[in-house]
Amino acid sequence: MSEQIEELDPAVAPEDEAEAYMLDRKAVSAILETVEAGDQAHLTQLMEPLHAADIADLLEQIDEADRAALIRLYGQEFDGEILSELDESIREEVISILTPQVLTQAVRELDSDDVVDLIEDLEGDQQETILDALEETDRVAVEQALNWPEYSAGRMMQREVVMAPEHWTVGQAIDHLRATAEEDLPDQFYHIVMVDPRLHPVGNVTLGKLMRSRRETRLADILEETFQIIPAMRDEGDVAYAFNQYHLISAPVVDEEGRLIGVITIDDAMAVLDEEHEEDILRLAGVGEGSLSDRVAETTKQRLPWLAVNLVTAIAASMVISQFEAAIAQIVALAVLMPIVASMGGNAGTQSLTVAVRALATKDLTGSNVWRVIRREVLVGLVNGLIFAVIMGVVGVVWFGSPALGYVIATAMVINLVVAGLAGTGIPILLERFGVDPALASGAFVTTVTDVVGFFAFLGLAAWVLL
Amino acid sequence: MSEQIEELDPAVAPEDEAEAYMLDRKAVSAILETVEAGDQAHLTQLMEPLHAADIADLLEQIDEADRAALIRLYGQEFDGEILSELDESIREEVISILTPQVLTQAVRELDSDDVVDLIEDLEGDQQETILDALEETDRVAVEQALNWPEYSAGRMMQREVVMAPEHWTVGQAIDHLRATAEEDLPDQFYHIVMVDPRLHPVGNVTLGKLMRSRRETRLADILEETFQIIPAMRDEGDVAYAFNQYHLISAPVVDEEGRLIGVITIDDAMAVLDEEHEEDILRLAGVGEGSLSDRVAETTKQRLPWLAVNLVTAIAASMVISQFEAAIAQIVALAVLMPIVASMGGNAGTQSLTVAVRALATKDLTGSNVWRVIRREVLVGLVNGLIFAVIMGVVGVVWFGSPALGYVIATAMVINLVVAGLAGTGIPILLERFGVDPALASGAFVTTVTDVVGFFAFLGLAAWVLL
Repeated sequence: MSEQIEELDPAVAPEDEAEAYMLDRKAVSAILETVEAGDQAHLTQLMEPLHAADIADLLEQIDEADRAALIRLYGQEFDGEILSELDESIREEVISILTPQVLTQAVRELDSDDVVDLIEDLEGDQQETILDALEETDRVAVEQALNWPEYSAGRMMQREVVMAPEHWTVGQAIDHLRATAEEDLPDQFYHIVMVDPRLHPVGNVTLGKLMRSRRETRLADILEETFQIIPAMRDEGDVAYAFNQYHLISAPVVDEEGRLIGVITIDDAMAVLDEEHEEDILRLAGVGEGSLSDRVAETTKQRLPWLAVNLVTAIAASMVISQFEAAIAQIVALAVLMPIVASMGGNAGTQSLTVAVRALATKDLTGSNVWRVIRREVLVGLVNGLIFAVIMGVVGVVWFGSPALGYVIATAMVINLVVAGLAGTGIPILLERFGVDPALASGAFVTTVTDVVGFFAFLGLAAWVLL
Repeated sequence: MSEQIEELDPAVAPEDEAEAYMLDRKAVSAILETVEAGDQAHLTQLMEPLHAADIADLLEQIDEADRAALIRLYGQEFDGEILSELDESIREEVISILTPQVLTQAVRELDSDDVVDLIEDLEGDQQETILDALEETDRVAVEQALNWPEYSAGRMMQREVVMAPEHWTVGQAIDHLRATAEEDLPDQFYHIVMVDPRLHPVGNVTLGKLMRSRRETRLADILEETFQIIPAMRDEGDVAYAFNQYHLISAPVVDEEGRLIGVITIDDAMAVLDEEHEEDILRLAGVGEGSLSDRVAETTKQRLPWLAVNLVTAIAASMVISQFEAAIAQIVALAVLMPIVASMGGNAGTQSLTVAVRALATKDLTGSNVWRVIRREVLVGLVNGLIFAVIMGVVGVVWFGSPALGYVIATAMVINLVVAGLAGTGIPILLERFGVDPALASGAFVTTVTDVVGFFAFLGLAAWVLL
């Protein structure tokens, strides 16, 4: 797990490069052709400029057979970082292709927090294989990290911390830093954490400030203004939120007694923020944990539950319709128009719901403004309802020549859009109160409400007014 | 725009704090009560532990009258950072409440890149007021930054860069750093950028490595492995993507001639990543640029266009239904069951669409795997379609006692779910090819397709088979 510093290759530094992303379609084709030709030297040369994250993307984009062929030909060059960048869905497959020597070599290059990332989702026997590949001290570090719950700050943190007693001077800190062995320092660090005698963190000093201050300056006099301590049990999503909210660069992690046990840096927080967003988007669409490299069977399984929930709600809406079969038999126009009311309600509900789910996630929707937000959503529903009521009323009259039908659809539209605003905001708030992720479950509830209310209001009013 | 370093207040460091977020409901109530009582000293005391980002959140959560009262009472304490953290929707309102002295003071505290963030969305006269409040050199810097297009790397970057010629040693770099005046250095910096004689960046050295190396070491020997140069015209979304993909901490920005003109750090990239995600989620739901602090009129206006598009597509679907009025008049069960087919298609389409939109955004869906992904989505639609076809076939038979109706709804379900997979993947890919943001427009197209196909397949088959 030592750090590798390579001389910068001018061919690698894309000085005049306009593209942010090196893995274009042409590059992929060229690599696949080389794999097919079995030309190892050329493959190594083509892969040279790619970052481990790009190689991981490449492996995710090609199919299983190409993946196996590429990995076998690439052989010894296979880097540990590629493994930690790989999507979970193909990680086990790739690990099973690597030879034991390549795997051992690859894993030993990684920092312990990356190894933790890598193995936490693997099957038991693959976990064992990788733990066995590690050196003793690294294995212990990884096993200790795994003792913290998944998605906790304890799992996220690096265990290597640069710390200094609060009474030290700049000179003492610099001397200490220079005397510390390379392997006891984190790969990247930006702050020195000051601790009191009980090892409780009391402040951060940036390296920039340390370097520019006089040797006799007390560290306590050049502390950063913004400083946050993170309990090891805190959820990783809350950690990412704090980094983004308070513009943290690194933050010390403490155990139950408040003692410094690690540090989290912004790059890891950014990765978590990205994952959390991804999860929210996919959950809002009822996709669970989808990824492009999943196979048909897995993807089908992931999407099925949400479709099943939707089937139940759709049948519930149909049952409402079946109560009005007599009315529909008399006026078939009702069957033609009823999906419009339901669809508008569903869309308006999804709008309110999405804003509410995001506001809950970013802690912008709180006890202080919940009633004002609900009132606003209901009013927005009312205003948009009135606007579309007029339009649909006119459409109803023009299309079917019946002013009464126009009134009915207009009234149903207003009712359903108001209900959509109410349900779209209220349901995620209630779910959050009951500890259910609102991104996951709100959609099904809200569209059930708008479908049922939409059909009931329209068909009920029609039966009452028109028959 | 000098840096303020305050002695860390022990009351501010939440040593035993379990909550990530300091602005809870109780804190907000206490602050509002103090504002009502007009107790300035107590207000200052209550606001003391809050970060500028928390104060901005507070202002967003309370209503307009409370906001004005709080800002007036808080007076001189109002910090420039609060302004740059504020949501755009209330920024102009808050600025108009501040007295000229408070505004000048607040703005002068900010870094030039924060001032740029602050004023780029303001009306012309408020922009002028703030530019006039700045000192001459800062105003010029801000005006230069505004020359770069919105959402470009040039707008994002800090103009203060720490650089060194490529032939320097560690000792020379440290001496240079210590000799540089405070105001010519960025607030926070983590790397020294090495440049060639034409000012082209050639590598990064981290401060940690600088500090630990011997004075006579050449900078060129301790360069970081990962190094990316960002053209000033690059889109901020691509910049954020590169930071996340390549785990960058800071990256040099260059002009058209490749000369170093600024630097972007990961905290700014993280903020952009967060905004881009937010935008994607809201666009997928057809909400545009919604924010909780928008008023009813603005919110109504933001949501109306999407609802109007949905109305057009719903009417299109209704027109399909109206072609089958005769069939519905004979078999009312068709009206009861038809929304189920459309709704299942809509949901399956949304699932495919969301996965495709995300994969396009993260550059995981490319020319290399587009056909494989489309094939997978169609197969998933087919398998789920067959599963739900069986279920709905049975429901149709049990509910309406007609095996023929069961066959019809089952077949329509399979057709619509296959089409949903195809449209849900194909439409975002096509939109991306034509340069339209797939997050913005795909939803309307996909549900139109699934509604029209769902109604047409079900009613058409029914008319053909059952009549």
